[in-house]
Formats: sequence, structure tokens, C-alpha cells
Amino acid sequence: MTNRSPFLLVLPLVVCACATTAPRFPSGAVVDMTYPFDEQTIYWPTEAGFQLKKEAYGHTPQGYFYAANSFSSAEHGGTHFDAPIHFAEGHPSVDQIPLEKLMGEAVLIDVTRQCAANPDYQVTQEDFAAWEKEHGRIPDGAIVLLRTGYGARWPDRKSYLGTEERGAEAVAKLHFPGLHPETARWLVGNRSIKAIGLDTASIDYGQSTLFESHQVLFAHDIPAFENVANLDRLPAKGFAVIAFPMKIKGGSGGPLRIAAVLGQGS
Amino acid sequence: MTNRSPFLLVLPLVVCACATTAPRFPSGAVVDMTYPFDEQTIYWPTEAGFQLKKEAYGHTPQGYFYAANSFSSAEHGGTHFDAPIHFAEGHPSVDQIPLEKLMGEAVLIDVTRQCAANPDYQVTQEDFAAWEKEHGRIPDGAIVLLRTGYGARWPDRKSYLGTEERGAEAVAKLHFPGLHPETARWLVGNRSIKAIGLDTASIDYGQSTLFESHQVLFAHDIPAFENVANLDRLPAKGFAVIAFPMKIKGGSGGPLRIAAVLGQGS
Ligand SMILES: [Zn+2]
Ligand SMILES: [Zn+2]
Repeated sequence: MTNRSPFLLVLPLVVCACATTAPRFPSGAVVDMTYPFDEQTIYWPTEAGFQLKKEAYGHTPQGYFYAANSFSSAEHGGTHFDAPIHFAEGHPSVDQIPLEKLMGEAVLIDVTRQCAANPDYQVTQEDFAAWEKEHGRIPDGAIVLLRTGYGARWPDRKSYLGTEERGAEAVAKLHFPGLHPETARWLVGNRSIKAIGLDTASIDYGQSTLFESHQVLFAHDIPAFENVANLDRLPAKGFAVIAFPMKIKGGSGGPLRIAAVLGQGS
Repeated sequence: MTNRSPFLLVLPLVVCACATTAPRFPSGAVVDMTYPFDEQTIYWPTEAGFQLKKEAYGHTPQGYFYAANSFSSAEHGGTHFDAPIHFAEGHPSVDQIPLEKLMGEAVLIDVTRQCAANPDYQVTQEDFAAWEKEHGRIPDGAIVLLRTGYGARWPDRKSYLGTEERGAEAVAKLHFPGLHPETARWLVGNRSIKAIGLDTASIDYGQSTLFESHQVLFAHDIPAFENVANLDRLPAKGFAVIAFPMKIKGGSGGPLRIAAVLGQGS
């Protein structure tokens, strides 16, 4: 029932039909890169987690079935969006980011091997250089995704975060990969990307205390996607990303629904 | 900063470049059809509304700026998604709807004139027939949007809902347009649409007591988008919709980020 209509995204590598014939509508697969929000969803050790309250479930006196819930959450938990205001005073909140900035061509930089050897790995400029040597310069306006391989550990807190402890004292025990602040500085100075995401709990690695990659990226209005799912299903390039966050007025972030649309050959 | 990259959506009416030349990437405007979640956001009279709690905002002892919030909400409030399980037992919850069903070609049926004359208007099969007479049969797999004109009244509760009272007794005082249950029956039996949305608080009109359009649509796994914004910016056809709800496990609905991508001529 979901494949009735030809899908309308056309990727750069797709060859269109000629102007004199009906246009073709390639139907590359859609990859949902979002974890569900439930009692297993991983939040920062200082956060309570996702809480769902069942308000109604069952048959009403009028005879029809009815189900409805309410919920509460921190802005930053599960697959979520970091707006610049999260670490950059005076910069946009989640509702102020135009959706054009959260849609379009994307690339995947795979550092799974490096991260398997070192839970404190920070993605280097050399990792970017290696990608560009093989695939060409990162296109202006691209969305960049970093695959550390940590998605395979979700939702096991101990292996995904480095600790299953909770509370403020657990923060020092976090071990997972992130983007090196020097690489963030290089990115904002030398490439023109729309946004960046990865498959760990934070764009800064678990042992960070100053969150410098957050600071650098957000000072340049480059938002981040964290706890992104299913990066193992993506190619290195030739796909599009759509990343739509909940529109919380003044929000520093919020729940994110993010998907990739693959090219026909992927 | 948002127009650096050519946008990748190609609409049906867009004529592609020939196979022997580089493909063109039309950059139709993106219309965000989502209201922000804040203290003004309209919920059902029985609901508490959106609640944001400031957890941190300011300079940390370490010297960097940091802002973060938590929030609570009913699933059904503001611009939101209705999953089939909301009124159809055993049918999919919000996390179980594949994103392919929430993306693609869309049409807009404008009943503003009818609704201006009657706050209890229910969209008829004749309204659909009139649209089809002018624009052709609704394509299989289309997403259908109904424009009642009530978007212009947001966020004034009295004029948008028909009452600004709260609580269970206010429900009988609701007056706003919706889809007639007979039209819903005709739709599921005679057209093959992916989803339907509108610019009022419910797909059933305010005076409904049995919510039959909900029941009929959801029994056929056609989800609904409610309190959709900015429908006045859309043409009758020739645009695409992307509607990404928050992925609440088992949710009967949830906050929705919804956008239209217009064709080049729009
Ligand atoms: Zn975050
Ligand atoms: Zn609803």
C-alpha cells in the first residue's frame, strides 16, 4: 500500500527522461533513520528519558474505539536535533531553521574501523580527506553524516554510551566517538555544509568537557543530528536526506524524524 | 545560507533535461506548514496544552553558553498526526507508518467559500467532483489537503474552535469545518490516497459526536494531518508534501512537521 505512487525525488545521478516524453519518477528506497521513542530510548545520563502516559485506550460508551496518549521528554534524547542556540547564544532555535537547510544532497563518511579500535575516537580532517580522495570534494550545501558504527550497539546503554550509570557523576564515564573540534574548525572554514549528523549521543565525543565541536558548528549555524539510526544502510554518496525536527518555539533542539532517499542504483 | 545547494525534488510537471545532458535540479520553494509549539498552540478543550520547561539557559562555570529544555504534550495538539490506531483497533500506530506513505504528490481542495458561510460545513463529494472537473482525477497515491480557510483564524481559540472554553463541557460548543463521513466513505471506496490533512483541529467537524470520518479513514489505514498551517500558499496541484511525525512507539499520533515543495512555476 505504500508503493502505489511513484516517488518524486530525483537524485543528481538519476538520468531524466527527455523533454518530449513524460518525465520519469525514480523510486529510490526510503531509509527511516529514526529510533522510536519508548522506555528504551537513550537519553543523556542526567535526563529522565521518554515518558508516555496512556490517556485512553478502548471502546467508548458511544461504541467506537479510541486511543490517545500524552508524553514528556527532554529536547535532547533519542534521535534528535541540536539547534545552534543549544551552545551559541543569540543563534537560531529549532523553529527558526528553514526546512531548506534540512533537506537535500548528503554524504556518508564511514569511520567504523577507527571507532571499533578506539571508543574515544574523534573524526579527523584526514578522514574527510580520505573520503574526498575517493569520492570528490564534499558538494557545497551537502548534509554530512558520520558513521561510527555505534548504531549497532543501540539501545544497550553500557555499550552505546560507555556507561549505564545515571546522574551527573556518570557523565565523566561516557565513552563514544565524536567529531574532533579541529575537524569542526576545518569544516566551517573550508567547506560549505548545511548540517551534520552521526550515530552517537553527541557530536562531541563522550569524554568531552567543553563541547567544542558543538560550539564551533553552532557559532556557524550548522545544526547537528544525534543518535541517527540505520547509517549502515547508506552508500557513501548519491542520496538525499530529509531531517524534520519538532517545531518547538525557542527550542534548543527536539525530537527529529530523519530519512534518506536512495538513488536508483543504491 | 539556505539556497546554496540546488534542491533535489522534481515534480511531475517539471520537464527534465535530456538523458544526454546533466539533469536539472528544480528548486521550487518549500512551504513549512507547521505551527510552532508554544503556550499559544491550540489543543482540544480537554487538553492542557504544550508545556516547555527551561532546564538551562546561560553561561556555564566552564565558560561556554548552554541552553536546554524539556517539554510535555498530548499527542493530539498543534500541527499533528493521527495514526489509524487513534480510532481503529489493531491498526498501525504512528511509528508503524512507513515514511513512503507520508511523502509525495499532493493536491489541495479549497472549500474556503463554503466554510466562510457555514462554520459547521462538511466537505462533500461534490467538492471533490468540482476539483476533479477542473484538474483531473485525483492521482493514485496522492496526499489530499483540504483548505477550509480556518488557518487564517489561528491561534485565536474562539474563532478557530468556535469556543475558547476549556474542559469536557466545551466540546459540545466546538464549531469548525471537517470532512463529511459520506465523503470519507466515497474516498476510501473510489480513490486511492495516501493520507489526508486539513487546516482545522479535526478531520471530523466540530459538532461531530461519533467521529465517523476518523473511523472510516483509519479503518482503511489512511492517516490524517490536523491543524495544518499555511494552506493559503499552495496551488491546487503540482506540489509535493513531506509529513514526518514524531516516532512515538505505539503512539496514536504526535507532533508533525509537514512541508510542501512547490513546482517551479508555482
Ligand atoms: Zn543534542
Ligand atoms: Zn488528532
